[in-house]
Order: sequence, then C-alpha cells, then structure tokens
Amino acid sequence: MMMLFFLPKIYGQDTPARPNQAAPRANLQNRQRIFSPEILPDDKVIFRLYAPKADSVKLVCDWMQGAESRITMVKNDSGLWSVTLGPLPQEVYGYTFNIDGVTVLDPLNPLIKRDVRNNTSILLISGNETDYYTPKEVPHGTLAKVWYNSPTLNLTRRMYVYTPAGYEDNKKAKYPVLYLLHGSGGDEDAWTQLGRAPTIMDNLIALGKAKPMIVVMTNGNPTQEAEMGCAPLSASQSGRPLATTVSAPAAVPVADGGRSGNQNNGRFEESLVKDVIPYIESHYRVLKDKNNRAIAGLSMGGGHTQNVTLKYPDMFAYIGVFSMGIRTMNDDLDNQFKVLKSKNPRLYYVAVGKTDNLTFNSSQTLVAVLKKDGFNYIYNETSGWHSWSNWRIYLSDFAPRLFK
Amino acid sequence: MMMLFFLPKIYGQDTPARPNQAAPRANLQNRQRIFSPEILPDDKVIFRLYAPKADSVKLVCDWMQGAESRITMVKNDSGLWSVTLGPLPQEVYGYTFNIDGVTVLDPLNPLIKRDVRNNTSILLISGNETDYYTPKEVPHGTLAKVWYNSPTLNLTRRMYVYTPAGYEDNKKAKYPVLYLLHGSGGDEDAWTQLGRAPTIMDNLIALGKAKPMIVVMTNGNPTQEAEMGCAPLSASQSGRPLATTVSAPAAVPVADGGRSGNQNNGRFEESLVKDVIPYIESHYRVLKDKNNRAIAGLSMGGGHTQNVTLKYPDMFAYIGVFSMGIRTMNDDLDNQFKVLKSKNPRLYYVAVGKTDNLTFNSSQTLVAVLKKDGFNYIYNETSGWHSWSNWRIYLSDFAPRLFK
Repeated sequence: MMMLFFLPKIYGQDTPARPNQAAPRANLQNRQRIFSPEILPDDKVIFRLYAPKADSVKLVCDWMQGAESRITMVKNDSGLWSVTLGPLPQEVYGYTFNIDGVTVLDPLNPLIKRDVRNNTSILLISGNETDYYTPKEVPHGTLAKVWYNSPTLNLTRRMYVYTPAGYEDNKKAKYPVLYLLHGSGGDEDAWTQLGRAPTIMDNLIALGKAKPMIVVMTNGNPTQEAEMGCAPLSASQSGRPLATTVSAPAAVPVADGGRSGNQNNGRFEESLVKDVIPYIESHYRVLKDKNNRAIAGLSMGGGHTQNVTLKYPDMFAYIGVFSMGIRTMNDDLDNQFKVLKSKNPRLYYVAVGKTDNLTFNSSQTLVAVLKKDGFNYIYNETSGWHSWSNWRIYLSDFAPRLFK
Repeated sequence: MMMLFFLPKIYGQDTPARPNQAAPRANLQNRQRIFSPEILPDDKVIFRLYAPKADSVKLVCDWMQGAESRITMVKNDSGLWSVTLGPLPQEVYGYTFNIDGVTVLDPLNPLIKRDVRNNTSILLISGNETDYYTPKEVPHGTLAKVWYNSPTLNLTRRMYVYTPAGYEDNKKAKYPVLYLLHGSGGDEDAWTQLGRAPTIMDNLIALGKAKPMIVVMTNGNPTQEAEMGCAPLSASQSGRPLATTVSAPAAVPVADGGRSGNQNNGRFEESLVKDVIPYIESHYRVLKDKNNRAIAGLSMGGGHTQNVTLKYPDMFAYIGVFSMGIRTMNDDLDNQFKVLKSKNPRLYYVAVGKTDNLTFNSSQTLVAVLKKDGFNYIYNETSGWHSWSNWRIYLSDFAPRLFK
C-alpha cells in the first residue's frame, strides 16, 4: 500500500494542495496516480474519472442550473475521462459525476458535503474571494453540539453553540447572542457544514470586524431531535417528505411565505423563545437584554425569523432575513409590523439575490413594508440566487452590524 | 418535487425506517421509488442500484476481506441491480458499489462515514447488539470541538471534548477524565464518527454502568492541526502518505509497534502531557489527581498510550491498550514497565481480536510483560480483527471499569 506513494506520476501533479483543498490520492485501478479535482495555478480545474467501460460520463455542477450544469467529459485511450473548467471564481462548490445515468461522488475526492439529503463532492478554490470562510491562523471559537430539553416540542433536541475565542479564558465576560436559523430541509449542522459560520465568525472577530458573540444554530424542524443518524427518532420522522431529487437546488423552501407546512406551524418559533433562549441564558455567560440579542435566518429560517420577531416584538433588537420575504400581505401582518416598529429594533436587514426567483419578489414586499413603517432597515441586493454562496456572504455582512 | 412523494411504490417499502437508519429516497431516473439499503424484518438487507447501462455491478462490503467482500449483483429487465444479503448480525457496516470497475457510494443512501481518506455508505442494522452505540432517549452529553494552543508542537490544534449530561447544570461537580486516542490515519473525529464514543458514553452513564466522566479525543498526528478541511494547514501536511487504496482496511497501522514513522516520534505523547492535560485541567471542572485520569487508545493510539504511560508513569491510574502491543521487547522497555508497575496503576487493560494478524502477537507480548511484572491487568481476547467493530466493544467494556 505504501509503495504506491513512490509510483511515477503520470496524471496530475504532486504540488502541495491548497489550504483546505482535498489532497490528491492514488487510483489503484490502473496503477497510476490520478488526481481529481486538480486546481491549476490559474484557477482552472481538471476533473478526472477512470471508467474505461463507461459510454458517457458527465460532470454535474451544483453552481449552475439546468442543461448547462451537466458537462460532457471526454475519454482518452486509457479509459480516463476528464474535463477542464474555468478559470472558476474562487468559491466552494459541490459536484458529482454521472456515469451512464448513475449519479456518483468523485471517488478520488474524500471531501464531501451534505445538503438536505444530497451529498456532493467538495471543490474549494481558495483565494481572496474565499478568505472570509477559509480556516486561518487566528484564534478559533469552540463549536459545541448541545442537547437541551424542549417542553414546547416534547423532545430532547440538539443545537450547535459557537462560543468565540476567549470565552473559556475570560471567565467573567458576558456575550451577546446571535440565533442563526437554517432553511427548509436543513438541520442544526447546515450553518456549519454549508454556511461555514464558525469559520466566518472566527475570521470576522479576529479582524475586529464583528464583536465577539455567541452564535446559536438550532434545528428548525419542530418534529426532529437532531440531524439524521444522530437522534433516537429517525430521519423518517423529521416531518417532511423524504423524497427529494438528486439534483434538487439547495434548500429550496417548501413554501415561499414560510407559513405553510408543518415546519412552519409556529411551534419552532415558540420553542425558540420558550426553550432555547432560556437554556442559553442560563447555561452561558450571556448579556440578556434585547439589545444583545439578534436573530437571522435563510429561506424557511427567514420565515421563522419574521414570525418570531412579529410574535415576540420585545425579544430581538437585530433582525436578519436572508432570501425570504412576505408572499401575501394582509391587515393582520401589517399591524404586527407596526407593533414591531413601535419597539424600535435597531436593525432590520434583508438580503436577496437578483436571480432568486423563489424569494426575490417576496423580499421586495418585505422591504416595502419596512420602508413604509419607517424601520431602520438595510436592503442588500446581490447577484446570485437561492444558494449558500449568498447566505455565507449575507452572514459576513450582517454579523459586523450587530451589537454596536 | 413534492409530487414524488405520492408516486406509487414499485420497489421497496415505505415502512418506517429503523432508528438511526437512513430513510429511503426516491430515484428520479426511472420515476419509481427505489430504496437502498432496505433492511427486512429478519435482518436480511437488499442493496439496489439503478444502472441500466452497466455491464457489472458489485457490492463491496467493508466487513469482509478479499474476494468474499465483493458480491455480484444481478440486473433485472428494467436495469435495476440488486442483491440480498443476510440475515446480517446487528452492527453498523460500510459498503460501496463497484460499477464496471468504478468504486462509488450508494446514490440512494445519504448516510456516509469517513475512515482515514475513504468514504463508505453506512448500513446500520439496529437491535440488541447495537444498543450500546445507538442514540437513545437518555440524557446526552455535550460534544465540543475545542481549539487549544500546543507550544510543544508549535500548532493551534483541535480536539473533541465530551462532557457528560449534567456537567452544565451541576456547576460545582468535578469529573474524572478519559483521554481516548485514535489509530493511524485517523484524526480527532474518528472516535466520534466511527467509534460512536459520545453515544456509548451517554448510554453507559445513563444505565449507571460508567461513572460520569469527561472524554477527551485528541488528534494523534503531531503535524496536523485538525481533520482535513478544518484547518489552515491542509490534509497534505498530515505527515503521512496521501495515497491509500479505495479498499484499504480500516485504520491499519503503519507499523505494528507504534514506534516508527513521524506519527510515533514521541512528540504527540509529549504534547498530550504538556499541552492537552493542562488545558483540560484549567478549562474544565476536573479531578486532577492520577486516580481520576485514564488513557486508552487503539492501534497507533495504543502505541501512544504505552509510550506516554511509560514515559510519565505518575500520570494515569487507568490504562487501556486496544489492538496494539509490544513488537520488540528490550531491556530498556522492560525497565520502564517495572518503573510503571512500581507506581501501581489501578488497571492495565489489553484487548485484541483473535484474527487481528496485525497486533495479536504483539498483544501477547504485552500481556506477558504485565503478568510477569505483577500488574493488575485485564486481557480481553475477542473474536474479530483490527476494526472499529471491536474498538467500540472495547470502549464499552473499559469505561465501566474506570474511577471506581
């Protein structure tokens, strides 16, 4: 096994992998070293798959949609399929291969990410553009998987709690808290695995851009204890349809307005206020006033954020709604926003991508209400669509505005 | 997308998934619902893959070796490949498919585990035999990913710290600590993802079988900050060959004795004593005497455990060596064991599988020394070989013997 390390390199290079990028590994099948993905110095990327008997291999890219996301690969005489893309923007991507109709992960790439029920191989092209979510030589916070009792939902549930670097050493310091909510189909792991929130917070805090804060990442599915495989109740009991497509876009909300389906029956929002916040405020060194409490969420979590801040208008001074809005305005909702405004939250932040056809329009409705009612709001309209690529950016833009 | 949920079920069943088992999901490719793996009531398992154009599909099982681990699947008229195994013993397994020579994960199974650099699809047949590592409705401890400074290794490094249920509420209680070490090629995640140590400890403590204790799971690779993808330094800098085979057995040690290679140069052991233990004892409510300090490790980690307890014989009262022993005895080592015995550790626990041809013989040498020198030792010889299946069992047998 170790001898392989000394075999001649016929395909690929043995240059040091970029930080955080999968290092290449050997493919025994033809006794040659094959690397995939290989990132070239100009940010072109070569994808390779050794499959001499296949008739057709396609690269399937999660950063594109429709037909253009499926890229034909070409086979050479030895049975090695490959395609070169780019130069690609610096970003973290997901991809799969399709071999004669079968969707598979890249066998040569050990790095995998899970989004809802779909796994994809990770391609990270690191550089300036990914700096804010790339692990760096800075002080790191602690990420804890914490179980708590939820009488509201009659479950023992799990959440992730990020405590910033220094929390354990500064034993008298108290910290503000950001409650950070995921989208439909996600779970308490989503903001870490896909959103890279702990690394984003490490980097923002180390640079002095954000105040040291605790970040609480809950599970927004009110019938689910924890991510699949980690809880006594199985994934089949998560309360949402099990059938998803292999090529489903990331965390598409079941309903735009965030007010239909049993993920959105208000029970999660109630448990957040009655179970989660009291747990955090009794178990961590936390500043417990409204001005030290922020909440933000994406997609379904943006719906949760709207719901909880309207129902409990005295709880949060900072509100962030990412890629979500108001689908149908009505008098009741209008009154709730007026009440919320009367409590003078310090910030109502809304962000959406220009090509997010799921929530662009509803976001405009939300912003119009905020404007009409005189909220101190920020509207951040970016390029891109309903994707983690944007939600990472929104967090990095939102967190520095908190608790100042 | 949601309509799929209502399509007729042609393959597979829609019975509730077992606890912790992947729920089935739809395969759009032929607009039928296909499930894989499907566990039948008698613990037979049906594996399925829709690949109409493939000439050959094999199921590759990580719980068998050699030719018998590769099982031919059969294609039906619609292009669906399948094979039924079992009844299988209740256990958590890993498997892949081999499609015309290409090794892939099961596209229908979202649950994946990583061992060293190899990913496999998870098959969990739950039942009495897996009870001790299956998540249950019991109080759960907290698992924290903690970064600490290691001046010894000149790195900021990550470890996992398990604090038992009640740690946050019993704010004056102090706890004993088990330092739990992984094998060659593993990292700080191995005892959680593969060893299921947090769940094992939750269950043992809830049943009153083990005392509440803190469990510290370090990264035993002295040049690595954290598992791949989580650290500023990349996986390529982990100090071990990057080339591993797709079908490599789990965590095979590079060298039996645990004393060759740069994983085994004594620097990790030194950092454990000089960096890790002081961090734990200054940041957690810990009982700091020798009788409340235990250490155990598997394979390379068993070598680390031997090394650190021989070099620092006053540190640990409980010592566990799983699937590791003494390859070459010499006078110096003999003297070190005599010194260790003179400190009267309360327990020296050795466990190995009968068919572990990597470390069975060296384990006998270790046991012979312990017997000769009059240690209070336990030798647990089990069936099986060098695998996580055994290491989970050894932890569940070792932990109840600690701190009594």
